[in-house]
Amino acid sequence: MEPETDIRPGERAVETPGAYDAGLWFIGRLRTPWTERRDCPRQGDMDNGPDCRVELDLRWQAALTGLGPGQTVQLLYWMDQARRDLVLQTPRGKDRPLGTFALRSPVRPNPVAVSVVRLLALDAAGLRVRGLDCVDGTPLIDIKPAGFGPWHLPHRELN
Amino acid sequence: MEPETDIRPGERAVETPGAYDAGLWFIGRLRTPWTERRDCPRQGDMDNGPDCRVELDLRWQAALTGLGPGQTVQLLYWMDQARRDLVLQTPRGKDRPLGTFALRSPVRPNPVAVSVVRLLALDAAGLRVRGLDCVDGTPLIDIKPAGFGPWHLPHRELN
Repeated sequence: MEPETDIRPGERAVETPGAYDAGLWFIGRLRTPWTERRDCPRQGDMDNGPDCRVELDLRWQAALTGLGPGQTVQLLYWMDQARRDLVLQTPRGKDRPLGTFALRSPVRPNPVAVSVVRLLALDAAGLRVRGLDCVDGTPLIDIKPAGFGPWHLPHRELN
Repeated sequence: MEPETDIRPGERAVETPGAYDAGLWFIGRLRTPWTERRDCPRQGDMDNGPDCRVELDLRWQAALTGLGPGQTVQLLYWMDQARRDLVLQTPRGKDRPLGTFALRSPVRPNPVAVSVVRLLALDAAGLRVRGLDCVDGTPLIDIKPAGFGPWHLPHRELN
């Protein structure tokens, strides 16, 4: 059993809602060197991380039109290996529980991850990128250009 | 009829997949001054935008533990008013179609928006924030701390 399926001291689970409110389509898969969650880096590295591949389903390939190498893109993906019912959790390396929304842990009601990666190359079947941090085969749900928005503010403006 | 439900010259729709691959729970609602999409600002403003409210469902409120005023947070929300089947689209103000993944338009296979806002105050029922740009009542799907990650790089590093 993966450790994250257990409840640790101080953690709190809630009863989840009965039905879903909206549905997601997986639009592709992320191919990375990491086959287990415990092997993944804590955070992706756009400069020194390994090259990874974004495989995009045929249906959506025309939607890449206009993206080019050198850009940064935001990838949204689905972290389907984690439980979704914890409101307080104690991540490894922390000594007290914190609220789920004060953490970027995969354990959350809707496990959508947001990563910014550097786009190295692209062809009809997908992208070569640097900066990912997830397990091989992770389902992709969106690609957005990252070349504007508040993440452009200098460090001191964002805490 | 909203203009975005029509197809404009050069736009291309695809047949969507038959079934969803994963489900989302709406965890709350975003309360903003804008009741129609056409009234929304093109991009939120963390410094000069109006104060907005994040209403969080009772079930998830303990998950705010550890967040505090002055922090920046990433809000993920669901843009449920847009069609999901366009791979090429011509946003207002553009003279040629671009791929959906080269745009941050609400029209996309999985209409999940990612905004960074400044957290002004919080209580058990939710947050007061500045920097939103969406219509009143928009469903919320996640709250993440924005105080680290690649959006911290200076402007020149992200195109």
